[in-house]
Amino acid sequence: MPTPPAASETGDPFLLTPGPLTTSQSVKAAMLHDWGSRDPGFIALNREVLARLPALVNAAASHVAVPMQGSGTFAVEAMLTTLVPRAGKVLLLINGAYGTRARRILEIAGRAVVVAETPEDTPPDTAALAAALAADRAITHVFAVHCETTSGILNPIAEIARVTGAAGRELLIDAMSAFGALALDAAAVPFQALAASANKCLEGVPGLGFVICRREALAEAAGNATTLALDLADQQRALEATGQYRFTPPTHVIAALHQALAEFEAEGGVSGRFARYRANCAALTEGMRGLGFCTLLPDHLQAPIIVTFRMPPDAGFDFARFYQGLAGRGFLIYPGKLTVAPSFRIGCIGRIGVPEMRGFLAAAAAVLRELGVTLAAPRAA
Amino acid sequence: MPTPPAASETGDPFLLTPGPLTTSQSVKAAMLHDWGSRDPGFIALNREVLARLPALVNAAASHVAVPMQGSGTFAVEAMLTTLVPRAGKVLLLINGAYGTRARRILEIAGRAVVVAETPEDTPPDTAALAAALAADRAITHVFAVHCETTSGILNPIAEIARVTGAAGRELLIDAMSAFGALALDAAAVPFQALAASANKCLEGVPGLGFVICRREALAEAAGNATTLALDLADQQRALEATGQYRFTPPTHVIAALHQALAEFEAEGGVSGRFARYRANCAALTEGMRGLGFCTLLPDHLQAPIIVTFRMPPDAGFDFARFYQGLAGRGFLIYPGKLTVAPSFRIGCIGRIGVPEMRGFLAAAAAVLRELGVTLAAPRAA
Repeated sequence: MPTPPAASETGDPFLLTPGPLTTSQSVKAAMLHDWGSRDPGFIALNREVLARLPALVNAAASHVAVPMQGSGTFAVEAMLTTLVPRAGKVLLLINGAYGTRARRILEIAGRAVVVAETPEDTPPDTAALAAALAADRAITHVFAVHCETTSGILNPIAEIARVTGAAGRELLIDAMSAFGALALDAAAVPFQALAASANKCLEGVPGLGFVICRREALAEAAGNATTLALDLADQQRALEATGQYRFTPPTHVIAALHQALAEFEAEGGVSGRFARYRANCAALTEGMRGLGFCTLLPDHLQAPIIVTFRMPPDAGFDFARFYQGLAGRGFLIYPGKLTVAPSFRIGCIGRIGVPEMRGFLAAAAAVLRELGVTLAAPRAA
Repeated sequence: MPTPPAASETGDPFLLTPGPLTTSQSVKAAMLHDWGSRDPGFIALNREVLARLPALVNAAASHVAVPMQGSGTFAVEAMLTTLVPRAGKVLLLINGAYGTRARRILEIAGRAVVVAETPEDTPPDTAALAAALAADRAITHVFAVHCETTSGILNPIAEIARVTGAAGRELLIDAMSAFGALALDAAAVPFQALAASANKCLEGVPGLGFVICRREALAEAAGNATTLALDLADQQRALEATGQYRFTPPTHVIAALHQALAEFEAEGGVSGRFARYRANCAALTEGMRGLGFCTLLPDHLQAPIIVTFRMPPDAGFDFARFYQGLAGRGFLIYPGKLTVAPSFRIGCIGRIGVPEMRGFLAAAAAVLRELGVTLAAPRAA
């Protein structure tokens, strides 16, 4: 019996990816209006959005949210090139593509870097971090990724912050795929800045990133940036002075984020969203293991954001046909990005719940039947 | 008799600004779907968008359109920092804020610049340009703004291109507010690259810029850029290899641009859009002069994009109250940006026609009556 095609509220496939994600119909409907970017109505809407963000990591008193047009990487590059002085030096904790990307950004910007890399399925070694900071006084900043989307691993951000703070250095966090779902408390996990985006766990649409940045750091950063567009200090100066962006903001995307934040709060904020994603992740992992797939990560390292599955070694399993079969049933999944092993990824985030996850699992079972494959892989990681 | 409030298709005020603009309801409705940015469906949609853009300036054979997330300034900065080599030198033709901004971008990037500046109501002096190019062999590029939104002036881009080409230098154009409405033919007006955006005369929504760039120039530009995000050569390499963006594209904004381009073609392309904007501009200018306002520019220098009006010297005229009165009647106008004289601006672009312009003029007349002002200014510039 064929699985009927799934359909989101709009009839589109569910996006089981790290983003762009499936968003609610009401978030998308918030884009059905044109706003004048220098009109008081839009200025007020934008102010509300920006005021809410630092509070989600208990940083409202100490930090400010500076928006950045473009994708999340634009926000990461803005954070790194604005806050790391030209004579600064960054120790990068790398265990995936996003850490590697930050390294490339800093090298292009001419900043000194030192790399502490672990395999994609291995968290950073915080004892080695402490030793590296003690050994090299020139290091001014540590860069870490909260949840590395490459594998879906949860990095030990609290311990990284503790070690970094104890050594008197500043922490910069790529919190892109964690922000809004994985709790972070700036009082307990001190950081100079974190970068995130509208389009991950906040369930807005893509087109806007932001950096939550300690106020004094921003004041001291004037003149650091290597571009005009990605200069966070300049961006913030204009927003503080006039409430207006220096350069045209993506007004529709910001209106969608405004609505997304209202829905986020209605769901119970960070803890509510985490609970839904955790349930999605549990249903997904259990179901996929039941079909014979293996997760890359053991459960205690898995963030409930995106799950990496090893490509089954079975001769009959063809990923392109698996993808197509799922797409035909209304579910888009994501290719792997691992260097350590062939893999694919399935996201747990966006406007989806356990019923949609169950629908996905039924579709996956149907596609395997269609391919004539019974996976022989062990059932647990 | 009070003017009834105007209303666009969505009931929102008309945006008589240089952008964000009033867009059609169908363009906004194209954002009611979520797209997977690495799914073949989105890749095909994005390819269609990019393939159409160079043809609008007769550059399909010689140039390629490279998209850039963010506002138009992001595209300008990407163009300047990618295409001007680190040892390059740019002569900037400046007669407004956008030329000044390009200068700042180049200075931050550490590129040598030389400035030829004229007042905001005066076109660049092309004889002086020829002399400057002859006198300084180190100049590699000329930068010009097609329509300077600061004043609304139409710069003599064909003559600038002729002089630049005759001197064997490359031309970079900020065509932000001109592209799609002011005809430009790459065969007759040679340029290395021009930057524009989804959100001006193409009548899409803000969040995506693009650079139409000669293919060989892009190939030679690898390694020039000062950032990862704004590296056009790197962006194009990924798009050519996989059809995918390096970093999450604003999928909804691109879907809106796809729809906007269909509506653009249905209107008759560049000539159709130009005709509507020219009629808007004529109705606006004639009507405002009838009310006693003066344009900054004489008609032969005025592009039909945005019109700058001098602030009336009459004691009873208060701009804040004029703006509010118009906003209450459903029309948002734009403050001035001139250094030479107090002014305000009214846009002719976006999903508006002569009936809306007449509605605006009736509203302006009503607000003047409400303010008790009869303007004493002369009726012609």
